[in-house]
Amino acid sequence: MAQGAFQTLPGFRDFRPEDCAVRNYLFRNFREVARRYGFVEYETPIVEGTELYLKKTGGELGTQLFRFEDQGGRDVTLRPEVTASLGRVLINSQRAYQKPMRWFEIGQCFRYEAPQAGRTREFYQFNVDLIGEADPAADAELIALTIELMRELGFKQGDFVIRLSDRRYWQEFAAAKDLTEEQAEELLTIVDKLERDKEGKCGPKLEKLGLSLAEVETAIKSPSELSDDLNAVLANLEARGMCDDVEVDLSIVRGLAYYTGVVFEVFDAKKKKRAVAGGGRYDTLVFALSDGKIDLPAVGFAIGDVVIRNLIEETPHALEKMKAALDAESACDVFLILADPEQQANALGLATQLRSAGIAVSYSLTAAKFNKQFKAAEQARAPLALVIGNEFPGVSLKTLATREEVKLTADDTIAETISQHLKK
Amino acid sequence: MAQGAFQTLPGFRDFRPEDCAVRNYLFRNFREVARRYGFVEYETPIVEGTELYLKKTGGELGTQLFRFEDQGGRDVTLRPEVTASLGRVLINSQRAYQKPMRWFEIGQCFRYEAPQAGRTREFYQFNVDLIGEADPAADAELIALTIELMRELGFKQGDFVIRLSDRRYWQEFAAAKDLTEEQAEELLTIVDKLERDKEGKCGPKLEKLGLSLAEVETAIKSPSELSDDLNAVLANLEARGMCDDVEVDLSIVRGLAYYTGVVFEVFDAKKKKRAVAGGGRYDTLVFALSDGKIDLPAVGFAIGDVVIRNLIEETPHALEKMKAALDAESACDVFLILADPEQQANALGLATQLRSAGIAVSYSLTAAKFNKQFKAAEQARAPLALVIGNEFPGVSLKTLATREEVKLTADDTIAETISQHLKK
Repeated sequence: MAQGAFQTLPGFRDFRPEDCAVRNYLFRNFREVARRYGFVEYETPIVEGTELYLKKTGGELGTQLFRFEDQGGRDVTLRPEVTASLGRVLINSQRAYQKPMRWFEIGQCFRYEAPQAGRTREFYQFNVDLIGEADPAADAELIALTIELMRELGFKQGDFVIRLSDRRYWQEFAAAKDLTEEQAEELLTIVDKLERDKEGKCGPKLEKLGLSLAEVETAIKSPSELSDDLNAVLANLEARGMCDDVEVDLSIVRGLAYYTGVVFEVFDAKKKKRAVAGGGRYDTLVFALSDGKIDLPAVGFAIGDVVIRNLIEETPHALEKMKAALDAESACDVFLILADPEQQANALGLATQLRSAGIAVSYSLTAAKFNKQFKAAEQARAPLALVIGNEFPGVSLKTLATREEVKLTADDTIAETISQHLKK
Repeated sequence: MAQGAFQTLPGFRDFRPEDCAVRNYLFRNFREVARRYGFVEYETPIVEGTELYLKKTGGELGTQLFRFEDQGGRDVTLRPEVTASLGRVLINSQRAYQKPMRWFEIGQCFRYEAPQAGRTREFYQFNVDLIGEADPAADAELIALTIELMRELGFKQGDFVIRLSDRRYWQEFAAAKDLTEEQAEELLTIVDKLERDKEGKCGPKLEKLGLSLAEVETAIKSPSELSDDLNAVLANLEARGMCDDVEVDLSIVRGLAYYTGVVFEVFDAKKKKRAVAGGGRYDTLVFALSDGKIDLPAVGFAIGDVVIRNLIEETPHALEKMKAALDAESACDVFLILADPEQQANALGLATQLRSAGIAVSYSLTAAKFNKQFKAAEQARAPLALVIGNEFPGVSLKTLATREEVKLTADDTIAETISQHLKK
């Protein structure tokens, strides 16, 4: 077999158990914070007809689609994001659900671009959407969820910042300058690139719109007046004690064309990296997708596993929190040690009994020396070892960290006794 | 936008929250049983180079590959199964892990075939593999895990049966009949199809090998002698009290060519449907994939979400168990009811405090009448409502099922008090 079969495709990852544990740590935090905020999980297909993406997102995403023709001759795509699919589900099913809908999703997304640091061809995305509520209280709820997620992942105040903005600020700016709709869109594209414009390309582009770089920079640094929505969001977050994690920054407009109002991005405090997460209001997407049949305001947020993992690894106390969580995991609760090979059948019966009671049990599958079995118990990071010898049903339970030992009888109560030891 | 964008591709599924809850119920059971048996989770990519599948599996799978050319001109495939990828991980990394390795994986697999009942183009598969142990104790451990999974899903004795077999029985049969290696493989293919051979195609095929249908049927119904491995597996399961769920059935040989010894399949008790799960020993796969460099015996098992969900839905007590689990889920623990709109900021602060303590909180985002808020609490299936009025920090906690009410003070202890109410 060719060498290639022993490698993943470029930009794809194998998750060996130690990597999968990190992934699951992130997923666990995503699900836990979503749960605390009353969100329920959904999932859509990984493969979709390409037209779903071409119509909706346009722009940058269109050129990065992981697109192919399937055996049925269909133009299909490995999803680059989930909001388009969510739009479809909403159009078909929204009537069945009370508004506002609090929905979230964790799944893989794909893009076909040159793999580079932090940019794989597949990544997991945590998507949270609050659907059917136009009030900025919904935007604030979602930003609060984002802040709680960052805290839950071990980030402290000052490690990250939510940069908060409103696209309508620029629409009003464009209107005041008598720009056409197309020019207003062009303006948003330029503002989006301003911060990373090392080659000075933005100035000439703005001049073509009859604007100067200076006036745009002033509009960012000294905003004339914040929108009512931004003020409402800030007041709402203030009531939650979360205002210190947020700063208004009108240079944030988000790359995707479907955002309509408040937008936000999460950055490392030094803003040295790309945004680790972002979201905003998309009040017209479902309306547009349904050809004007369904008017459903919504606000959404997404975070990818690759970028947030990188930030955790570069933030000592977040990394410490993750490591502590991973260190606390073990392959089993109790490792059975067979001191007398004659007791094998009894050991299997006991393993079955304990497992049925929810206790994670492992043991050496074949005969092994006493010491080797203890070594295997340590390698499985089992907190407890249960030694089964010729006094069965008399057995002894050892706490491996302290070498403490208690004598037990393998009867109906043993699972309960072991569970209590595990809680200690 | 064309109508097609509002539909999933043929054979793909949207999981709306009520479907996703079923999927997650299955995943929870998969993970829980894997944990009890000391298995750790891994994951491999959904897209792989096609050569990985062509070399290894051959046969039926080869014609059902969801195969395409990516933008880089690579011949790639949406994985039809996970064992080939696992083989790659083992070749690259097995040295880093103590044997035996207890690994499991839950992920999506794909096949391009005509969608029909129970046969979608994507499905989730729970894969469990015990690697690096040739002793039949490993086969028995995996079969025990399978039985425990079925029990955990609510199936009772008599609802399902594990049909246990050994491929070597047929290899020995073939040797006794002086068949060539190719003929022996052909014999296995015929035996695999025998049970569903409604058109009587198997008889003539056997005759071409110099065998009669009668002698093959006799070899199945009245096996001369069971292999030592089968006897060891049966004795092992007997010690666990699991023997009654298993029957030796030599007509089971599994479709894939890489199985080498003990094989088994899980069926509904009436054997009316396709196998809901299956597995077996594949001692030479890693050896073959690594061109003879790594000799690693292994035994594996897989179950798909679509088929097991169907069987649950047709088995009243398994369905009842699933429904009870789903009914116990709610979108939140506590619904905040704002009796006095002036207290909104305090309500937001309280929500944040409770959520940080791990309590799931929801509330009406905008001002709503008292009764409407209670209705929303019921719709979210919240067990508790916390009414915040003008006596704040005095609040009252209502148990929605019983209408019981207790007065509380919104101080540092309120999260703890609510947690205790949730445990009741």
